[in-house]
Amino acid sequence: MKTYLKELECPKCGKKHDPSRLNNLCACGTPLLVRYDLDRLAREFDPKEWGKRPEGLWRYRELLPVVKEENLVSLGEGGTPVYPLPKIAREYGLKELYMKDEGMNPTGTFKARGAAVGVSKALELGVNTVAMPTAGNAGAAWAAYSARADIKMVVVMPEDAPATTQAECVAYGCETYLVKGLISDAGRVVREACAKRGWFEAATLKEPYRIEGKKTMGLEIWEQFGDKMPDAIIYPTGGGVGIIGMWKAFQELKIMGWLTGPLPRMVVVQAEGCAPIVRAYREGKDKAEFFQDAHTVAAGIRVPSALGDFLVLDAVRSSGGTCVTVTDEELLDTWKHVSRTEGALICPEGAAAVKAAKMIKDMGVISEDDTVLVLNTGAGMKYTELLLERAVNLGSAGLVK
Amino acid sequence: MKTYLKELECPKCGKKHDPSRLNNLCACGTPLLVRYDLDRLAREFDPKEWGKRPEGLWRYRELLPVVKEENLVSLGEGGTPVYPLPKIAREYGLKELYMKDEGMNPTGTFKARGAAVGVSKALELGVNTVAMPTAGNAGAAWAAYSARADIKMVVVMPEDAPATTQAECVAYGCETYLVKGLISDAGRVVREACAKRGWFEAATLKEPYRIEGKKTMGLEIWEQFGDKMPDAIIYPTGGGVGIIGMWKAFQELKIMGWLTGPLPRMVVVQAEGCAPIVRAYREGKDKAEFFQDAHTVAAGIRVPSALGDFLVLDAVRSSGGTCVTVTDEELLDTWKHVSRTEGALICPEGAAAVKAAKMIKDMGVISEDDTVLVLNTGAGMKYTELLLERAVNLGSAGLVK
Repeated sequence: MKTYLKELECPKCGKKHDPSRLNNLCACGTPLLVRYDLDRLAREFDPKEWGKRPEGLWRYRELLPVVKEENLVSLGEGGTPVYPLPKIAREYGLKELYMKDEGMNPTGTFKARGAAVGVSKALELGVNTVAMPTAGNAGAAWAAYSARADIKMVVVMPEDAPATTQAECVAYGCETYLVKGLISDAGRVVREACAKRGWFEAATLKEPYRIEGKKTMGLEIWEQFGDKMPDAIIYPTGGGVGIIGMWKAFQELKIMGWLTGPLPRMVVVQAEGCAPIVRAYREGKDKAEFFQDAHTVAAGIRVPSALGDFLVLDAVRSSGGTCVTVTDEELLDTWKHVSRTEGALICPEGAAAVKAAKMIKDMGVISEDDTVLVLNTGAGMKYTELLLERAVNLGSAGLVK
Repeated sequence: MKTYLKELECPKCGKKHDPSRLNNLCACGTPLLVRYDLDRLAREFDPKEWGKRPEGLWRYRELLPVVKEENLVSLGEGGTPVYPLPKIAREYGLKELYMKDEGMNPTGTFKARGAAVGVSKALELGVNTVAMPTAGNAGAAWAAYSARADIKMVVVMPEDAPATTQAECVAYGCETYLVKGLISDAGRVVREACAKRGWFEAATLKEPYRIEGKKTMGLEIWEQFGDKMPDAIIYPTGGGVGIIGMWKAFQELKIMGWLTGPLPRMVVVQAEGCAPIVRAYREGKDKAEFFQDAHTVAAGIRVPSALGDFLVLDAVRSSGGTCVTVTDEELLDTWKHVSRTEGALICPEGAAAVKAAKMIKDMGVISEDDTVLVLNTGAGMKYTELLLERAVNLGSAGLVK
């Protein structure tokens, strides 16, 4: 086991931090980024080695922050498939539309990646108790890995978080609290509790390692597409860690000379009822303002304010990407349509990303000959309630005898 | 794309059948097995090639029955991880206990493997409509792949099949019927409908290709464990196709000289309330009788009668394995315990398999130095209802403000 971990760096004030100590934000209030000795890695390592190891997140350990193998907490995360959506592509007038299906992860979502690395590093740094606010899926993922690592976990989630994610947290033995309100309200409760009790706060981007887990989606996409990267990658954006992580992966690969040629345009999709990043993008701002009265059926992107907003906006702008919104109606129609036509029961957030492929095609951001990759961030079967309420009707299931 | 498919063979009367035509059972009423030209494959192919292809079921295409690449129907199935359960191992007095986690498949269960190959072959042979009875998960998997293949799908399931699986079938646009009764009652409805309407009947083992999909679990285990195969493999047994498939994989590998050394003992676990195979095993019989008043909370093993019973019993006996039962109480306790200790929210059937590891250790079938592999056949998050009813209590989730 060998990592090329070097230090933590503040992307705003440039201050360096010691990765052998526990860190949250920089003193200036900014999320910290993990830096590696990329020069040395590029000299010493052949990335073809990654391809020879079993698929999964930990094959990239040189570019991950865990130092000792004994601290790896793993449930078989990563190594998710990319497959085509040929019928939707035809409908949308696109030559090639692919989906990376993150539903095939432990706990059924891409959140497992952040949790695997975040919990492993928390274990390595001696954390006893982790606390976090969650829309549901991140809490479930962190609860799973914490249980495996024997770290005490506390989550606070909106009381309307999907029942499956609530049940998962409790099943993993996690201390689970519900708030009347949004994830931002849950965040306040966690912040206060951590200050008072000395728990380690692992809210989105409040600790530096979750990004590193999500980064592996970018590393996998690079391995899966090789020299011909997708022309655009569409990501349903709540906290934005996935897009930040993928973009960080592409930068690191580029610096090492392993990824040559043009990078994908990074595309943010948010719900019309909760679109802080899209609004900031349209207004030409570097950071987003709190989105009042946030609402959407897609819990994972019901995030009115994101600490990493400036990093997301930078990824979008420097990649030549864009930001779009979809309505809940569009998202639900697409959700239902993708399962019936392509056999993929994705999550509502993933449906927003599929719909966005048509929008960026119609906007001319990409042409019909371009290759588009959408991220499905979770398995649709976690959303049975919503499916039954809004997208399918079990009444159509006939009763025989 | 190259398959070494040769013919279909009846394991009872030995009659050969043409695999370029649509086949159900042999004229003698027995499920057919797919035979390959193993001599030629052993001469012409180096199985190290499999390891160089992307993970997943289709890397083994030489040993799968689909002839033309255009007929592959894929959603990224297979390539599931194996990970250790170190705390449970310690508790049970075992040195090494591993779990192969089939929850990380499309539709969240191992049923995706059978459906991928079964639907691909149905497409290749020109089937328009497939019908099957299901306990829930097989129907959901076949519904997904049929939607992708544009094949019309009809499923009939017990009205108490998990709500998630009902919702999945409907979401995939599958014609979904519920019966008051067991899967055996659903089977009767399907049989009659197929006879009347000319639909292709894909009930468990009524068509020969589902086994081939499940077989890939065995091929993966061989790749994952290499020369040191597990001493025992424990499989929660409903229809039994998984154990038949894995055993078939091991036989084929052995014939080709690719798998040397002792084969694992194959262990069947069933619920005390529905244990036809276990009873037949104990009574020294070659086939099982219908299990009256079958009941268990684990829907996937609520199968009172299995067409492949004789093949399951043969795998158990010729491998030196055994058959055990667990009570629903044991199964539910284990379910809850595994998620809290190992961070793995498995399915109730998988929990039965974990519990069986302790039982076969206590029985002396395996010793403390042996390596045991349990199959978790599906993702626990598909069973939220049961989880909430029987294993966790959301009341313990506190409400803040």
